[in-house]
Amino acid sequence: MAASTGLSLENEVFSKFAFYAGVVLIKTVVMSLWTARYRIPRKVFITPEDYVLSNTPVSLSQDADVERVRRCHQNDLENVLPFVLIGLLYVLTGPELSTALLVFRLFAGSRLLHTIVYLNAVPQPSRALLFFVGIGVNIYMAVAVLRSTSF
Amino acid sequence: MAASTGLSLENEVFSKFAFYAGVVLIKTVVMSLWTARYRIPRKVFITPEDYVLSNTPVSLSQDADVERVRRCHQNDLENVLPFVLIGLLYVLTGPELSTALLVFRLFAGSRLLHTIVYLNAVPQPSRALLFFVGIGVNIYMAVAVLRSTSF
Amino acid sequence: MAASTGLSLENEVFSKFAFYAGVVLIKTVVMSLWTARYRIPRKVFITPEDYVLSNTPVSLSQDADVERVRRCHQNDLENVLPFVLIGLLYVLTGPELSTALLVFRLFAGSRLLHTIVYLNAVPQPSRALLFFVGIGVNIYMAVAVLRSTSF
Repeated sequence: MAASTGLSLENEVFSKFAFYAGVVLIKTVVMSLWTARYRIPRKVFITPEDYVLSNTPVSLSQDADVERVRRCHQNDLENVLPFVLIGLLYVLTGPELSTALLVFRLFAGSRLLHTIVYLNAVPQPSRALLFFVGIGVNIYMAVAVLRSTSF
Repeated sequence: MAASTGLSLENEVFSKFAFYAGVVLIKTVVMSLWTARYRIPRKVFITPEDYVLSNTPVSLSQDADVERVRRCHQNDLENVLPFVLIGLLYVLTGPELSTALLVFRLFAGSRLLHTIVYLNAVPQPSRALLFFVGIGVNIYMAVAVLRSTSF
Repeated sequence: MAASTGLSLENEVFSKFAFYAGVVLIKTVVMSLWTARYRIPRKVFITPEDYVLSNTPVSLSQDADVERVRRCHQNDLENVLPFVLIGLLYVLTGPELSTALLVFRLFAGSRLLHTIVYLNAVPQPSRALLFFVGIGVNIYMAVAVLRSTSF
Protein backbone atom coordinates (compact mmCIF):
# COMPACT_ATOMS: atom_id res chain seq x y z
CA MET A 1 0.00 0.00 0.00
CA ALA A 2 1.53 3.29 -1.08
CA ALA A 3 1.37 6.18 1.36
CA SER A 4 -0.61 8.14 -1.19
CA THR A 5 -3.60 5.79 -1.11
CA GLY A 6 -3.81 4.46 2.45
CA LEU A 7 -4.70 5.89 5.83
CA SER A 8 -1.71 8.18 6.24
CA LEU A 9 -1.43 11.96 6.43
CA GLU A 10 0.84 11.68 3.36
CA ASN A 11 -2.27 10.61 1.43
CA GLU A 12 -3.77 13.98 0.60
CA VAL A 13 -7.35 12.66 0.42
CA PHE A 14 -6.99 11.17 3.89
CA SER A 15 -5.29 14.27 5.26
CA LYS A 16 -8.21 16.44 4.12
CA PHE A 17 -10.67 13.90 5.48
CA ALA A 18 -8.88 13.94 8.86
CA PHE A 19 -9.26 17.73 9.03
CA TYR A 20 -13.00 17.80 8.28
CA ALA A 21 -13.69 14.72 10.41
CA GLY A 22 -11.83 16.44 13.27
CA VAL A 23 -13.96 19.57 12.85
CA VAL A 24 -17.30 17.78 12.98
CA LEU A 25 -16.20 15.45 15.79
CA ILE A 26 -15.04 18.32 17.99
CA LYS A 27 -18.34 20.08 17.25
CA THR A 28 -20.25 16.96 18.34
CA VAL A 29 -18.24 16.56 21.54
CA VAL A 30 -18.74 20.22 22.46
CA MET A 31 -22.54 19.77 22.34
CA SER A 32 -22.28 18.11 25.80
CA LEU A 33 -20.80 21.30 27.22
CA TRP A 34 -23.44 23.35 25.42
CA THR A 35 -26.16 21.35 27.20
CA ALA A 36 -24.48 22.07 30.55
CA ARG A 37 -24.41 25.77 29.68
CA TYR A 38 -28.23 25.75 29.86
CA ARG A 39 -28.68 23.11 32.56
CA ILE A 40 -26.60 24.86 35.23
CA PRO A 41 -28.13 28.39 35.22
CA ARG A 42 -31.65 26.98 34.84
CA LYS A 43 -31.08 24.22 37.40
CA VAL A 44 -32.61 21.53 35.21
CA PHE A 45 -30.57 18.37 35.69
CA ILE A 46 -30.55 14.75 34.65
CA THR A 47 -29.97 12.91 37.95
CA PRO A 48 -31.01 13.36 41.59
CA GLU A 49 -27.34 13.74 42.65
CA ASP A 50 -27.00 16.78 40.36
CA TYR A 51 -29.88 18.45 42.23
CA VAL A 52 -28.18 17.68 45.55
CA LEU A 53 -24.97 19.37 44.35
CA SER A 54 -26.83 22.49 43.22
CA ASN A 55 -28.88 22.52 46.42
CA THR A 56 -32.16 22.50 44.47
CA PRO A 57 -35.21 20.29 45.07
CA VAL A 58 -35.42 17.47 42.52
CA SER A 59 -37.67 18.45 39.64
CA LEU A 60 -39.02 16.41 36.76
CA SER A 61 -39.68 19.44 34.61
CA GLN A 62 -37.84 19.92 31.35
CA ASP A 63 -36.44 23.06 29.82
CA ALA A 64 -37.19 23.78 26.15
CA ASP A 65 -33.65 25.03 25.41
CA VAL A 66 -31.96 22.08 27.12
CA GLU A 67 -34.15 19.70 25.11
CA ARG A 68 -33.33 21.59 21.90
CA VAL A 69 -29.58 21.23 22.46
CA ARG A 70 -30.03 17.55 23.29
CA ARG A 71 -31.97 16.90 20.08
CA CYS A 72 -29.26 18.69 18.10
CA HIS A 73 -26.62 16.53 19.85
CA GLN A 74 -28.59 13.36 19.07
CA ASN A 75 -28.85 14.44 15.43
CA ASP A 76 -25.04 14.67 15.38
CA LEU A 77 -24.69 11.15 16.78
CA GLU A 78 -27.01 9.94 14.01
CA ASN A 79 -25.16 11.74 11.20
CA VAL A 80 -21.63 12.81 12.17
CA LEU A 81 -20.50 9.44 13.56
CA PRO A 82 -21.67 7.56 10.42
CA PHE A 83 -19.95 10.22 8.27
CA VAL A 84 -16.58 9.55 9.89
CA LEU A 85 -16.99 5.77 9.59
CA ILE A 86 -18.26 5.80 6.00
CA GLY A 87 -15.64 8.44 5.13
CA LEU A 88 -12.77 6.24 6.36
CA LEU A 89 -13.95 3.45 4.05
CA TYR A 90 -14.56 5.92 1.20
CA VAL A 91 -10.98 7.28 1.42
CA LEU A 92 -9.73 3.73 0.84
CA THR A 93 -11.69 3.42 -2.42
CA GLY A 94 -9.19 5.95 -3.86
CA PRO A 95 -11.51 8.80 -4.93
CA GLU A 96 -10.31 11.85 -6.90
CA LEU A 97 -9.00 14.52 -4.51
CA SER A 98 -11.26 17.23 -5.98
CA THR A 99 -14.41 15.10 -5.62
CA ALA A 100 -13.52 13.95 -2.12
CA LEU A 101 -12.72 17.49 -0.97
CA LEU A 102 -16.05 18.77 -2.29
CA VAL A 103 -17.92 16.01 -0.49
CA PHE A 104 -16.08 16.54 2.83
CA ARG A 105 -16.62 20.32 2.68
CA LEU A 106 -20.30 19.95 1.84
CA PHE A 107 -20.76 17.67 4.84
CA ALA A 108 -18.77 19.76 7.33
CA GLY A 109 -20.28 23.04 6.11
CA SER A 110 -23.85 21.75 6.16
CA ARG A 111 -23.47 20.27 9.66
CA LEU A 112 -21.99 23.47 11.14
CA LEU A 113 -24.86 25.46 9.62
CA HIS A 114 -27.34 22.78 10.76
CA THR A 115 -26.27 23.34 14.36
CA ILE A 116 -26.57 27.13 14.10
CA VAL A 117 -30.00 26.82 12.48
CA TYR A 118 -31.18 24.22 15.00
CA LEU A 119 -30.04 26.05 18.14
CA ASN A 120 -31.51 29.34 16.94
CA ALA A 121 -34.80 27.82 15.75
CA VAL A 122 -34.40 29.37 12.29
CA PRO A 123 -37.66 28.75 10.39
CA GLN A 124 -37.95 25.55 8.40
CA PRO A 125 -37.19 24.24 5.78
CA SER A 126 -33.64 25.55 6.41
CA ARG A 127 -32.82 22.78 8.91
CA ALA A 128 -34.36 20.08 6.70
CA LEU A 129 -32.38 21.21 3.64
CA LEU A 130 -29.09 21.20 5.56
CA PHE A 131 -29.93 17.79 6.99
CA PHE A 132 -30.48 16.43 3.47
CA VAL A 133 -27.08 17.69 2.29
CA GLY A 134 -25.42 15.70 5.08
CA ILE A 135 -27.43 12.53 4.55
CA GLY A 136 -26.88 12.84 0.79
CA VAL A 137 -23.11 12.89 1.32
CA ASN A 138 -23.31 9.83 3.59
CA ILE A 139 -25.38 7.86 1.09
CA TYR A 140 -23.14 8.94 -1.81
CA MET A 141 -19.99 7.77 -0.01
CA ALA A 142 -21.61 4.51 1.17
CA VAL A 143 -22.68 3.68 -2.41
CA ALA A 144 -19.10 4.35 -3.58
CA VAL A 145 -17.85 1.90 -0.92
CA LEU A 146 -20.35 -0.80 -1.90
CA ARG A 147 -19.46 -0.39 -5.60
CA SER A 148 -15.76 -0.97 -4.79
CA THR A 149 -16.40 -4.12 -2.75
CA SER A 150 -18.53 -7.25 -2.91
CA PHE A 151 -20.36 -9.66 -0.64
CA MET B 1 2.76 -3.47 6.35
CA ALA B 2 1.76 -5.57 3.37
CA ALA B 3 -1.39 -4.63 1.49
CA SER B 4 -2.83 -8.02 2.34
CA THR B 5 -2.96 -7.35 6.09
CA GLY B 6 -3.65 -3.61 6.47
CA LEU B 7 -6.60 -1.33 5.83
CA SER B 8 -6.60 -1.55 2.05
CA LEU B 9 -9.15 -2.96 -0.39
CA GLU B 10 -6.36 -5.28 -1.56
CA ASN B 11 -6.61 -6.97 1.84
CA GLU B 12 -9.50 -9.34 1.25
CA VAL B 13 -10.58 -9.42 4.90
CA PHE B 14 -10.78 -5.61 4.94
CA SER B 15 -12.52 -5.49 1.56
CA LYS B 16 -15.25 -7.82 2.82
CA PHE B 17 -15.50 -5.84 6.06
CA ALA B 18 -15.90 -2.60 4.08
CA PHE B 19 -18.82 -4.11 2.16
CA TYR B 20 -20.74 -5.30 5.24
CA ALA B 21 -19.88 -2.16 7.23
CA GLY B 22 -21.18 -0.10 4.31
CA VAL B 23 -24.44 -2.09 4.27
CA VAL B 24 -25.20 -1.66 7.97
CA LEU B 25 -24.10 2.00 7.98
CA ILE B 26 -26.36 2.90 5.04
CA LYS B 27 -29.20 1.06 6.80
CA THR B 28 -28.58 3.13 9.96
CA VAL B 29 -28.46 6.41 8.07
CA VAL B 30 -31.70 5.61 6.22
CA MET B 31 -33.54 5.21 9.56
CA SER B 32 -33.68 9.04 9.74
CA LEU B 33 -35.62 9.14 6.50
CA TRP B 34 -37.84 6.31 7.71
CA THR B 35 -38.78 8.39 10.75
CA ALA B 36 -39.69 11.33 8.46
CA ARG B 37 -41.88 8.98 6.41
CA TYR B 38 -44.15 8.65 9.48
CA ARG B 39 -43.71 12.14 10.93
CA ILE B 40 -44.82 14.04 7.83
CA PRO B 41 -48.17 12.35 7.01
CA ARG B 42 -49.07 12.14 10.72
CA LYS B 43 -47.91 15.70 11.43
CA VAL B 44 -45.99 14.66 14.57
CA PHE B 45 -42.80 16.69 14.69
CA ILE B 46 -39.83 17.31 16.93
CA THR B 47 -39.58 21.13 17.01
CA PRO B 48 -42.03 24.07 16.99
CA GLU B 49 -40.60 25.35 13.67
CA ASP B 50 -41.55 22.02 12.01
CA TYR B 51 -45.17 22.63 13.06
CA VAL B 52 -45.03 26.15 11.61
CA LEU B 53 -43.83 24.76 8.26
CA SER B 54 -46.62 22.18 8.12
CA ASN B 55 -49.17 24.76 9.24
CA THR B 56 -50.27 22.61 12.19
CA PRO B 57 -50.76 23.68 15.82
CA VAL B 58 -47.86 22.57 18.03
CA SER B 59 -48.64 19.27 19.71
CA LEU B 60 -46.80 17.39 22.42
CA SER B 61 -48.43 14.09 21.56
CA GLN B 62 -46.32 11.20 20.32
CA ASP B 63 -47.05 8.67 17.62
CA ALA B 64 -46.47 4.99 18.37
CA ASP B 65 -44.98 4.25 14.94
CA VAL B 66 -42.65 7.26 15.02
CA GLU B 67 -41.41 6.18 18.45
CA ARG B 68 -40.91 2.61 17.22
CA VAL B 69 -38.71 3.76 14.32
CA ARG B 70 -36.75 6.01 16.69
CA ARG B 71 -36.08 3.15 19.11
CA CYS B 72 -34.93 0.98 16.22
CA HIS B 73 -32.62 3.81 15.08
CA GLN B 74 -31.24 4.21 18.61
CA ASN B 75 -30.62 0.46 18.76
CA ASP B 76 -28.54 0.81 15.58
CA LEU B 77 -26.47 3.61 17.12
CA GLU B 78 -25.81 1.35 20.10
CA ASN B 79 -24.84 -1.70 18.03
CA VAL B 80 -23.92 -0.83 14.43
CA LEU B 81 -21.49 2.00 15.25
CA PRO B 82 -19.55 -0.17 17.76
CA PHE B 83 -19.51 -3.00 15.18
CA VAL B 84 -17.76 -0.82 12.61
CA LEU B 85 -15.23 0.47 15.17
CA ILE B 86 -14.50 -2.92 16.74
CA GLY B 87 -14.44 -4.47 13.25
CA LEU B 88 -11.75 -2.07 12.02
CA LEU B 89 -9.54 -3.10 14.95
CA TYR B 90 -10.42 -6.78 14.44
CA VAL B 91 -9.38 -6.71 10.76
CA LEU B 92 -5.93 -5.54 11.90
CA THR B 93 -5.50 -8.58 14.17
CA GLY B 94 -5.21 -10.63 10.93
CA PRO B 95 -8.10 -13.11 11.31
CA GLU B 96 -8.70 -16.00 8.89
CA LEU B 97 -10.79 -14.83 5.93
CA SER B 98 -13.38 -17.59 6.41
CA THR B 99 -13.88 -16.78 10.11
CA ALA B 100 -14.03 -13.04 9.50
CA LEU B 101 -16.50 -13.42 6.64
CA LEU B 102 -18.79 -15.58 8.78
CA VAL B 103 -18.71 -13.04 11.59
CA PHE B 104 -19.39 -10.04 9.29
CA ARG B 105 -22.27 -11.86 7.56
CA LEU B 106 -23.80 -12.95 10.86
CA PHE B 107 -23.74 -9.35 12.08
CA ALA B 108 -25.08 -7.74 8.89
CA GLY B 109 -27.74 -10.43 8.39
CA SER B 110 -28.94 -10.31 12.00
CA ARG B 111 -29.14 -6.50 11.99
CA LEU B 112 -31.13 -6.34 8.74
CA LEU B 113 -33.55 -8.92 10.12
CA HIS B 114 -33.60 -7.09 13.48
CA THR B 115 -34.88 -3.96 11.73
CA ILE B 116 -37.59 -5.84 9.83
CA VAL B 117 -38.69 -7.62 13.01
CA TYR B 118 -38.61 -4.40 15.07
CA LEU B 119 -40.54 -2.23 12.61
CA ASN B 120 -43.20 -4.90 12.07
CA ALA B 121 -43.55 -5.74 15.78
CA VAL B 122 -42.96 -9.45 15.12
CA PRO B 123 -43.64 -11.32 18.39
CA GLN B 124 -40.75 -11.77 20.77
CA PRO B 125 -38.30 -13.46 21.33
CA SER B 126 -37.40 -12.99 17.63
CA ARG B 127 -36.03 -9.47 18.17
CA ALA B 128 -34.13 -10.50 21.30
CA LEU B 129 -32.48 -13.46 19.53
CA LEU B 130 -31.36 -11.30 16.61
CA PHE B 131 -30.06 -8.68 19.02
CA PHE B 132 -27.97 -11.32 20.79
CA VAL B 133 -26.37 -12.48 17.54
CA GLY B 134 -25.18 -8.91 16.92
CA ILE B 135 -23.93 -8.29 20.44
CA GLY B 136 -22.26 -11.72 20.41
CA VAL B 137 -20.31 -10.77 17.28
CA ASN B 138 -19.25 -7.47 18.83
CA ILE B 139 -18.04 -9.12 22.03
CA TYR B 140 -16.27 -11.89 20.06
CA MET B 141 -14.37 -9.37 17.93
CA ALA B 142 -13.54 -7.14 20.92
CA VAL B 143 -12.08 -10.13 22.82
CA ALA B 144 -9.97 -11.00 19.75
CA VAL B 145 -8.66 -7.40 19.74
CA LEU B 146 -7.83 -7.46 23.46
CA ARG B 147 -6.05 -10.81 23.09
CA SER B 148 -3.83 -9.37 20.33
CA THR B 149 -2.85 -6.29 22.34
CA SER B 150 -1.84 -5.37 25.88
CA PHE B 151 -2.18 -2.55 28.38
CA MET C 1 4.05 4.13 5.16
CA ALA C 2 6.20 2.24 7.65
CA ALA C 3 4.47 -0.29 9.91
CA SER C 4 5.63 1.72 12.90
CA THR C 5 3.54 4.78 12.04
CA GLY C 6 0.38 3.44 10.35
CA LEU C 7 -2.67 1.50 11.50
CA SER C 8 -0.94 -1.79 12.25
CA LEU C 9 -0.44 -3.72 15.48
CA GLU C 10 3.31 -3.40 14.77
CA ASN C 11 2.91 0.34 15.40
CA GLU C 12 3.13 0.43 19.19
CA VAL C 13 1.02 3.60 19.52
CA PHE C 14 -1.75 1.98 17.49
CA SER C 15 -1.43 -1.32 19.33
CA LYS C 16 -1.95 0.44 22.68
CA PHE C 17 -4.80 2.46 21.23
CA ALA C 18 -6.47 -0.74 19.98
CA PHE C 19 -6.32 -2.20 23.50
CA TYR C 20 -7.90 0.81 25.25
CA ALA C 21 -10.41 1.38 22.43
CA GLY C 22 -11.39 -2.30 22.75
CA VAL C 23 -11.89 -1.91 26.50
CA VAL C 24 -14.18 1.12 26.28
CA LEU C 25 -16.09 -0.29 23.30
CA ILE C 26 -16.79 -3.59 25.04
CA LYS C 27 -17.91 -1.62 28.10
CA THR C 28 -20.30 0.42 25.93
CA VAL C 29 -21.75 -2.66 24.23
CA VAL C 30 -22.30 -4.40 27.58
CA MET C 31 -24.48 -1.49 28.76
CA SER C 32 -27.30 -2.95 26.63
CA LEU C 33 -27.18 -6.16 28.65
CA TRP C 34 -27.00 -4.15 31.87
CA THR C 35 -30.28 -2.44 30.93
CA ALA C 36 -31.89 -5.84 30.33
CA ARG C 37 -30.68 -6.97 33.76
CA TYR C 38 -33.05 -4.39 35.29
CA ARG C 39 -35.83 -4.52 32.70
CA ILE C 40 -36.51 -8.25 32.98
CA PRO C 41 -36.94 -8.70 36.78
CA ARG C 42 -38.88 -5.40 37.06
CA LYS C 43 -40.97 -6.12 33.94
CA VAL C 44 -40.42 -2.63 32.51
CA PHE C 45 -40.04 -2.98 28.76
CA ILE C 46 -39.67 -0.86 25.67
CA THR C 47 -42.22 -2.40 23.27
CA PRO C 48 -45.70 -3.98 23.53
CA GLU C 49 -44.35 -7.29 22.17
CA ASP C 50 -41.92 -7.49 25.12
CA TYR C 51 -44.87 -7.29 27.51
CA VAL C 52 -46.65 -10.07 25.59
CA LEU C 53 -43.59 -12.32 25.97
CA SER C 54 -43.37 -11.72 29.70
CA ASN C 55 -47.13 -12.14 30.08
CA THR C 56 -47.49 -8.71 31.74
CA PRO C 57 -50.03 -5.98 30.93
CA VAL C 58 -48.46 -3.16 28.89
CA SER C 59 -47.34 -0.35 31.17
CA LEU C 60 -46.10 3.13 30.34
CA SER C 61 -44.37 3.55 33.69
CA GLN C 62 -40.61 3.94 33.86
CA ASP C 63 -38.15 2.49 36.32
CA ALA C 64 -35.55 4.82 37.86
CA ASP C 65 -32.74 2.26 37.62
CA VAL C 66 -33.51 1.35 34.01
CA GLU C 67 -33.47 5.04 33.11
CA ARG C 68 -30.18 5.53 34.96
CA VAL C 69 -28.48 2.72 32.99
CA ARG C 70 -29.89 4.13 29.74
CA ARG C 71 -28.53 7.61 30.49
CA CYS C 72 -25.13 6.10 31.27
CA HIS C 73 -25.27 4.18 27.97
CA GLN C 74 -26.22 7.34 26.07
CA ASN C 75 -23.31 9.16 27.72
CA ASP C 76 -21.02 6.44 26.36
CA LEU C 77 -22.40 6.88 22.84
CA GLU C 78 -21.69 10.61 23.16
CA ASN C 79 -18.13 10.18 24.45
CA VAL C 80 -16.70 6.70 23.77
CA LEU C 81 -17.60 6.54 20.06
CA PRO C 82 -16.01 9.97 19.36
CA PHE C 83 -12.93 8.87 21.37
CA VAL C 84 -12.35 5.88 19.11
CA LEU C 85 -12.84 7.95 15.95
CA ILE C 86 -10.70 10.89 17.07
CA GLY C 87 -8.14 8.44 18.46
CA LEU C 88 -7.73 6.68 15.10
CA LEU C 89 -6.94 10.02 13.47
CA TYR C 90 -4.69 11.03 16.38
CA VAL C 91 -2.58 7.83 16.08
CA LEU C 92 -1.87 8.80 12.46
CA THR C 93 -0.43 12.18 13.51
CA GLY C 94 2.49 10.20 14.98
CA PRO C 95 2.37 11.22 18.66
CA GLU C 96 5.05 10.22 21.19
CA LEU C 97 4.25 6.79 22.66
CA SER C 98 4.45 8.05 26.26
CA THR C 99 2.06 10.96 25.61
CA ALA C 100 -0.37 8.81 23.66
CA LEU C 101 -0.36 6.09 26.31
CA LEU C 102 -1.09 8.61 29.06
CA VAL C 103 -3.97 10.06 27.08
CA PHE C 104 -5.49 6.63 26.27
CA ARG C 105 -5.20 5.49 29.89
CA LEU C 106 -6.72 8.70 31.22
CA PHE C 107 -9.68 8.25 28.91
CA ALA C 108 -10.25 4.55 29.56
CA GLY C 109 -9.74 4.90 33.32
CA SER C 110 -12.01 7.92 33.64
CA ARG C 111 -14.79 6.26 31.62
CA LEU C 112 -14.70 3.02 33.62
CA LEU C 113 -14.90 5.05 36.83
CA HIS C 114 -17.60 7.26 35.29
CA THR C 115 -19.80 4.20 34.77
CA ILE C 116 -19.28 2.95 38.33
CA VAL C 117 -20.01 6.40 39.74
CA TYR C 118 -23.06 6.88 37.51
CA LEU C 119 -24.67 3.50 38.18
CA ASN C 120 -24.16 3.82 41.93
CA ALA C 121 -25.32 7.46 42.13
CA VAL C 122 -22.11 8.51 43.90
CA PRO C 123 -22.56 12.15 45.01
CA GLN C 124 -21.56 14.87 42.58
CA PRO C 125 -19.18 16.39 41.52
CA SER C 126 -17.44 13.00 41.10
CA ARG C 127 -19.31 12.16 37.89
CA ALA C 128 -18.80 15.64 36.46
CA LEU C 129 -15.04 15.55 37.12
CA LEU C 130 -14.66 12.15 35.43
CA PHE C 131 -16.74 13.37 32.51
CA PHE C 132 -14.42 16.35 32.09
CA VAL C 133 -11.32 14.13 31.97
CA GLY C 134 -12.85 12.21 29.06
CA ILE C 135 -14.01 15.26 27.15
CA GLY C 136 -10.63 16.92 27.78
CA VAL C 137 -8.85 13.96 26.16
CA ASN C 138 -11.19 14.08 23.17
CA ILE C 139 -10.66 17.81 22.65
CA TYR C 140 -6.88 17.47 23.14
CA MET C 141 -6.63 14.74 20.49
CA ALA C 142 -8.95 16.57 18.08
CA VAL C 143 -6.82 19.72 18.34
CA ALA C 144 -3.70 17.63 17.63
CA VAL C 145 -5.42 16.26 14.50
CA LEU C 146 -6.46 19.72 13.28
CA ARG C 147 -2.93 21.05 13.84
CA SER C 148 -1.48 18.26 11.68
CA THR C 149 -3.90 18.87 8.80
CA SER C 150 -5.42 21.79 6.90
CA PHE C 151 -8.64 22.80 5.16
